Amino acid sequence: METSVFDLVIRNGTVVTASDTARADIGVRDGAIAAIGRGLAGRETIDAEGRYVLPGGVDTHCHVEQMTAAGIMNADTFESATRSAAFGGTTTIISFAAQHRGMDLAEVVADYHRRAEAGAMIDYAFHMIVTDAGERNLAQLPRLVRDGHGSIKLFMTYDPLIVDDAAILSLMQLAKAEGAMICVHAENHSMIAWASARLIEAGCTAPKYQALAHPREAEAEAIGRLIALCEYMDQPVTVFHVSTSEGLALIAAARRRGVRIFAETCPHYLLLTADDMDKPGMEGAKWMCSPPLRRTSDQEALWQGLAAGDLTIVSSDHAPFRHDATGKLRAGPTASFKQIANGMPGLETRMMLMFDQALQGRISLNRMVDLTATTPAKTYNLHPRKGTIAVGADADLVLWNPETRVTLADAMIHDGTGYTPFAGRTIQGWPETVLVRGTPVVRDGATHVPPGFGQFLRTSGKL
Amino acid sequence: METSVFDLVIRNGTVVTASDTARADIGVRDGAIAAIGRGLAGRETIDAEGRYVLPGGVDTHCHVEQMTAAGIMNADTFESATRSAAFGGTTTIISFAAQHRGMDLAEVVADYHRRAEAGAMIDYAFHMIVTDAGERNLAQLPRLVRDGHGSIKLFMTYDPLIVDDAAILSLMQLAKAEGAMICVHAENHSMIAWASARLIEAGCTAPKYQALAHPREAEAEAIGRLIALCEYMDQPVTVFHVSTSEGLALIAAARRRGVRIFAETCPHYLLLTADDMDKPGMEGAKWMCSPPLRRTSDQEALWQGLAAGDLTIVSSDHAPFRHDATGKLRAGPTASFKQIANGMPGLETRMMLMFDQALQGRISLNRMVDLTATTPAKTYNLHPRKGTIAVGADADLVLWNPETRVTLADAMIHDGTGYTPFAGRTIQGWPETVLVRGTPVVRDGATHVPPGFGQFLRTSGKL
Amino acid sequence: METSVFDLVIRNGTVVTASDTARADIGVRDGAIAAIGRGLAGRETIDAEGRYVLPGGVDTHCHVEQMTAAGIMNADTFESATRSAAFGGTTTIISFAAQHRGMDLAEVVADYHRRAEAGAMIDYAFHMIVTDAGERNLAQLPRLVRDGHGSIKLFMTYDPLIVDDAAILSLMQLAKAEGAMICVHAENHSMIAWASARLIEAGCTAPKYQALAHPREAEAEAIGRLIALCEYMDQPVTVFHVSTSEGLALIAAARRRGVRIFAETCPHYLLLTADDMDKPGMEGAKWMCSPPLRRTSDQEALWQGLAAGDLTIVSSDHAPFRHDATGKLRAGPTASFKQIANGMPGLETRMMLMFDQALQGRISLNRMVDLTATTPAKTYNLHPRKGTIAVGADADLVLWNPETRVTLADAMIHDGTGYTPFAGRTIQGWPETVLVRGTPVVRDGATHVPPGFGQFLRTSGKL
Amino acid sequence: METSVFDLVIRNGTVVTASDTARADIGVRDGAIAAIGRGLAGRETIDAEGRYVLPGGVDTHCHVEQMTAAGIMNADTFESATRSAAFGGTTTIISFAAQHRGMDLAEVVADYHRRAEAGAMIDYAFHMIVTDAGERNLAQLPRLVRDGHGSIKLFMTYDPLIVDDAAILSLMQLAKAEGAMICVHAENHSMIAWASARLIEAGCTAPKYQALAHPREAEAEAIGRLIALCEYMDQPVTVFHVSTSEGLALIAAARRRGVRIFAETCPHYLLLTADDMDKPGMEGAKWMCSPPLRRTSDQEALWQGLAAGDLTIVSSDHAPFRHDATGKLRAGPTASFKQIANGMPGLETRMMLMFDQALQGRISLNRMVDLTATTPAKTYNLHPRKGTIAVGADADLVLWNPETRVTLADAMIHDGTGYTPFAGRTIQGWPETVLVRGTPVVRDGATHVPPGFGQFLRTSGKL
Repeated sequence: METSVFDLVIRNGTVVTASDTARADIGVRDGAIAAIGRGLAGRETIDAEGRYVLPGGVDTHCHVEQMTAAGIMNADTFESATRSAAFGGTTTIISFAAQHRGMDLAEVVADYHRRAEAGAMIDYAFHMIVTDAGERNLAQLPRLVRDGHGSIKLFMTYDPLIVDDAAILSLMQLAKAEGAMICVHAENHSMIAWASARLIEAGCTAPKYQALAHPREAEAEAIGRLIALCEYMDQPVTVFHVSTSEGLALIAAARRRGVRIFAETCPHYLLLTADDMDKPGMEGAKWMCSPPLRRTSDQEALWQGLAAGDLTIVSSDHAPFRHDATGKLRAGPTASFKQIANGMPGLETRMMLMFDQALQGRISLNRMVDLTATTPAKTYNLHPRKGTIAVGADADLVLWNPETRVTLADAMIHDGTGYTPFAGRTIQGWPETVLVRGTPVVRDGATHVPPGFGQFLRTSGKL
Repeated sequence: METSVFDLVIRNGTVVTASDTARADIGVRDGAIAAIGRGLAGRETIDAEGRYVLPGGVDTHCHVEQMTAAGIMNADTFESATRSAAFGGTTTIISFAAQHRGMDLAEVVADYHRRAEAGAMIDYAFHMIVTDAGERNLAQLPRLVRDGHGSIKLFMTYDPLIVDDAAILSLMQLAKAEGAMICVHAENHSMIAWASARLIEAGCTAPKYQALAHPREAEAEAIGRLIALCEYMDQPVTVFHVSTSEGLALIAAARRRGVRIFAETCPHYLLLTADDMDKPGMEGAKWMCSPPLRRTSDQEALWQGLAAGDLTIVSSDHAPFRHDATGKLRAGPTASFKQIANGMPGLETRMMLMFDQALQGRISLNRMVDLTATTPAKTYNLHPRKGTIAVGADADLVLWNPETRVTLADAMIHDGTGYTPFAGRTIQGWPETVLVRGTPVVRDGATHVPPGFGQFLRTSGKL
Repeated sequence: METSVFDLVIRNGTVVTASDTARADIGVRDGAIAAIGRGLAGRETIDAEGRYVLPGGVDTHCHVEQMTAAGIMNADTFESATRSAAFGGTTTIISFAAQHRGMDLAEVVADYHRRAEAGAMIDYAFHMIVTDAGERNLAQLPRLVRDGHGSIKLFMTYDPLIVDDAAILSLMQLAKAEGAMICVHAENHSMIAWASARLIEAGCTAPKYQALAHPREAEAEAIGRLIALCEYMDQPVTVFHVSTSEGLALIAAARRRGVRIFAETCPHYLLLTADDMDKPGMEGAKWMCSPPLRRTSDQEALWQGLAAGDLTIVSSDHAPFRHDATGKLRAGPTASFKQIANGMPGLETRMMLMFDQALQGRISLNRMVDLTATTPAKTYNLHPRKGTIAVGADADLVLWNPETRVTLADAMIHDGTGYTPFAGRTIQGWPETVLVRGTPVVRDGATHVPPGFGQFLRTSGKL
Repeated sequence: METSVFDLVIRNGTVVTASDTARADIGVRDGAIAAIGRGLAGRETIDAEGRYVLPGGVDTHCHVEQMTAAGIMNADTFESATRSAAFGGTTTIISFAAQHRGMDLAEVVADYHRRAEAGAMIDYAFHMIVTDAGERNLAQLPRLVRDGHGSIKLFMTYDPLIVDDAAILSLMQLAKAEGAMICVHAENHSMIAWASARLIEAGCTAPKYQALAHPREAEAEAIGRLIALCEYMDQPVTVFHVSTSEGLALIAAARRRGVRIFAETCPHYLLLTADDMDKPGMEGAKWMCSPPLRRTSDQEALWQGLAAGDLTIVSSDHAPFRHDATGKLRAGPTASFKQIANGMPGLETRMMLMFDQALQGRISLNRMVDLTATTPAKTYNLHPRKGTIAVGADADLVLWNPETRVTLADAMIHDGTGYTPFAGRTIQGWPETVLVRGTPVVRDGATHVPPGFGQFLRTSGKL
């Protein structure tokens, strides 16, 4: 090597990529991976003996500093969210620049940039939530996409975010022209509205009824519709948070006939069920998310989908609402499920849960890396800079101790939510050290970079 | 690095693995990859500027020095076959130790070892072709598997190689106990026999009728049956040379429900059709293989299967018979297709054709590496030593010049067959330099190692 | 028999029902079938020697005296339409009481009753076309259903008839409570609007482009969505005029898992293709219908669907627009396809075409009767009075001469349209004599009853 | 009517066919149905007021006087079997002429004719069980088929009855040439043998283990193989006694793509499960049949298959072995399941159970008639003489009292078996009077015809 001394060397770890597992040192120079070898020398070294060294997690679905229509506060700032992510072994997030109806999209994007620039402790990008295909949006979007906001998030449900089929077609056409990815929350709005109204009429207002208010058929319907639109337009689409076996089956069939449809699921759909919502009083609200938790048979189907390659990403869908009067309980202790914010925190636990599942043999560690880092990065063209361990990539690295066993508890979590839906669950494996661009962000149980350390990443949806 | 000077450095290439693409040097020490970095120094260097550096190909399906039942000579020795493979960018083969009925399997295996040890110029392993589940085989197999022959090849057609369902079940049970992979030629024997007899009765004896003699339904049937056996026994199975959309569809459906069935196809099924057999006289015999070439719609389905992950390996099924009186024309110029040896050469062209297809955009280069090297190596537990570019792996490396265009011709090919079914096809990309364990086997258009340079590799079917 | 002399006996015919074929006489008394036997004696007799005697056709999908939104005139009165139907062997129609937005549904229904009562020469019922789920409709519908209008027709496309998913759910709920059938024109409106706008922008305005303006995916999408709604609500639904293999496949799969979804197709989807629209100038407009004519492969799929039982009804979707300035050419000779009325006549030819296909062996005569008379009648609870030949049923009988061959021509047809899309097609089999409630409506090539002879039939969607 | 007085009139019943339900009298003359009407007069009359009049059941799958390979006695003679059938409302059976290996098929057929001619009290036909495709069989079969034995039954399991794929292809070719139906017991023999051996090795010999000895995959595999053979040969095939959802799904998919595959199931697969075999000691042997009883989810799938039309026949698979030392217990009280005869009686209960299910609303009475009489008769070209109520058909009629409730008990059954697997089950509906060709065979709880009253019926497999 021309210069044999690196800024930093991670020594003697077991390096895991989506493809390979190898015992090797990693040499870091100028924040990037400069070499993978053995016996590397650095000005600084981190001993990774007995550790797995994985690429930092890439979480492509999380809500940060995002106002909700109902005025309920998202409990996280970019600082709290990215600190939490880092503690969990995630080094890149794609958050949202969330337009609400009537807002100017460019201003929305600029605002989120300001917030993230000030607060982010890890690197970040933005999906643009677009709520209509009006002239103003269509005029602004091409420039915004070219400026590195390469994905457009659409909601098929959630008044007033909802876009109709005509808007989806227009936005798909624009996305196709500009090389943007379309990401979609796919549930049939009318079915949810209809079911919700019937349940509330019947006095079934407790949190657990939200699972019935989002019929399984509503997800399958919307995914089927989205596939038809995607197939007709020949525009790639990513379906967010697939939760049902029926929805997955439609995606698998479409992929088999060549439709460019991609799909993610989340740890809570893989590991929890609607039974977890069946708690006294408002306690169940902690497990309310949308789409809701489903059945054991759905879990089995989703794991199968991960193995067969029909699901390509595991994201957190981190949606941080406190279980108190500032958040989920804002409408009081007798509110109906329609008045309770959907969503649960997950930025910090996502990688831990999936690493644990890999150690338990559910999937290989390589596949775990692929699902949580490599393919997420590739899907938005953050790869090869992010999502892998390769020469030239950012030195976003996480040292996992496979021997550590931890029982998760609310107090452990660093986000603003105050709880984790996985409290009480014991996992194996722990992300001890987390580097972003070669800098230890987390080490010895503490963060070591200031807010604003994180950098903006340009994304693209070009396949 | 403890010692900063490597035995050999491949400089400035674009390194491609199943997961990543990165511009980097590769440092080789003691025949293995010791480092991937930039500015590496070696006692020797190979300039890879403008080249893609891929792991050497792993061809898990090729017939070498294998006698046929009919006494037709396989045209290749281990020397000629491995030389041909090396010229095509393949550095590892899994050939066959082929029992014929009545032979002692251990002796068969020993005999193939002797032949390969003397002749092989690249590394090799063996599938054991087993023709019955008799006591002698069942007694010998456990030791042979433990000695590194970790896969058992079965024929559902081809008298006298054919094994019946009862034998398959017994061999699956043994394979499950010993951790061996079961590999299968899946076609329904009775349907082929029936169709062949009817065609010959009708005077339809020309080579092209072989395509009709192997009904599509015969492949689908046998694959369906194999899936049922595999599903019942819960024993992993690899289906060799899938050729029809119907067969593929059964595999895809089984994988979706969790059956551990794996499948390969071959370049000739992806790029040729039965129309290629429709030549005057005996010329069509060059394109006879089994299962036969199929339709354009099957090609489309197979490419789709590669993309969707339902097909995991592209092998050559190299079956080298000369198009003369020692080979395909042994039974004379008026022989029926039943008297003509099935199979075509492909060891040398496999990687070239797939590299070209990747450059044309049909699949990514990463996926090409995955299909032709990484997953083949993983399937038989040759990985991480073989099939990838990672620290600790054997330095089996191929430098591909993506600018070279070549029109394939019979005279270019180095195997013993004397022809290539792809003659006349122009491809882009050429494997200029081929290293095995750091030693240039092919460089400047010539081989540089003696017969016997190749080493035996122990395989296993443990998943 | 208490009285051995019938009002009328049809002698020596071959009586065909959905289940059976038997040589027998049919004795009619008081307009109903009183006996099926041999050697029956009647005050009048009709010799059916050499004839097939089938139940009169029941056409459950035809548009009569129905104003279009664009003001284009439907060319048929109840008199002309039912005369035409009778000449074609159809003795019962279910026409539409077509609400346009803003109209009072009860008044609409009353108006259609007046028109039919005055003009109909055969028996009739009404589907109610409902354009919204507003309070007024929801209040009126229960009574209207109970008064014998047991089916509600909804349009998923066609502004301003279109209803959204919320309205469909509300109307399904009402239908479930009242025992009404829901019938749907299932195409995705946004996709059609999007495609139409793009085509017209591109100057592709000729009639043939209408086939592209209604993407196949638009039908599949809407059918998929409808199935989801139907499955969620557990309310029976009939999909009108299925035209694509993809749409049919969704229906078949849903039926296999127990969804109560029923489907019809029409002779033009079985026998014509989009190529038939590719005519010079505005000539192609004659073959414009919605959904449009499709491909040969769709025809094959639809015939297969009839055989397998996934399609249960063959209706005409008679939509009579003249090919002149009062109809399809109203917007002039350079109009775009969006300005041309969709639909083609078919009341008179439906039974002829299907009888011919049965004689050609495509389906059995029993199945032909089932698809065109028995199941249509059963679906709307007109059976056992209509749709079959059984004791107690109305004597709606058609004597078909299987030896007659006729080449169809525009001038032969008795509706108000002035053309038939099947002109030039030679068919075998002819409906010589047509009885409604024992009265010869058509005999010797002429009608023998006055307008107003037809009676209203109460329908119900109770399964 | 030329002569207004019939030999017999069934008055005032509700006549049910596969298509229609009508209140009518039935006039019988010379053993055939001469008229369906009202107010018919006969020399004799039977009052059917309050009764449903159905066509006599046609049971196309029952074993009578059939020796088993193991020498276990079939407990029924033609006399006892047909008496039992008649008491249950069945008026036609297709029994077997069962070749055992080495027997002369023509002699076998002649022998069964002699036995049936002497004993049968209702009409009968024969399937020929063929055990090989040797020259002698191939030479004799054409004449036997033309003589009215229009169906060939093959076993894919059961040594020594089993035929291999080659034999099936040859027999399909012959059947295609002669217009014979092929009927198949479809289970994979090797899988059953393998599973049985493992179970017995493990000491799992009780009757209930027979359910495990016939893996579900063994049925699916054999049905899949049969479909491939049938699809390749384009020869119609009937799959006997479908028991699993997987097997049914393969049949449904094949039918959707146009394969001429037909399928039956039996009441015990619809109404019992493997749990019924879980009885102390040898008691479970009463419920042993092959394929074995399955799961509740299979029952659901089979009912769905009846509704969707994928299953077209409900037969009994009557296999009468006594639960004593002459039958199932021949090998003693500690015998393994392999030594116990498979099969249970069902001739008498089939129609009762299905009539009851229809009254409970599971299927319509019309569909019940279709499945148990009309389609069975059509499948073998016994229709229109058998299987329906139409002019010219044999007066095989059953008067069912829908008000009668009966709890089934062993002692009620008239076959030679001495037990019914449905003992203890309460059903609604009772076949009070059973006519064959106009003659009351059962009336007032007793038979009224001598053995030998039954006539041979010629069958054909021509579609």
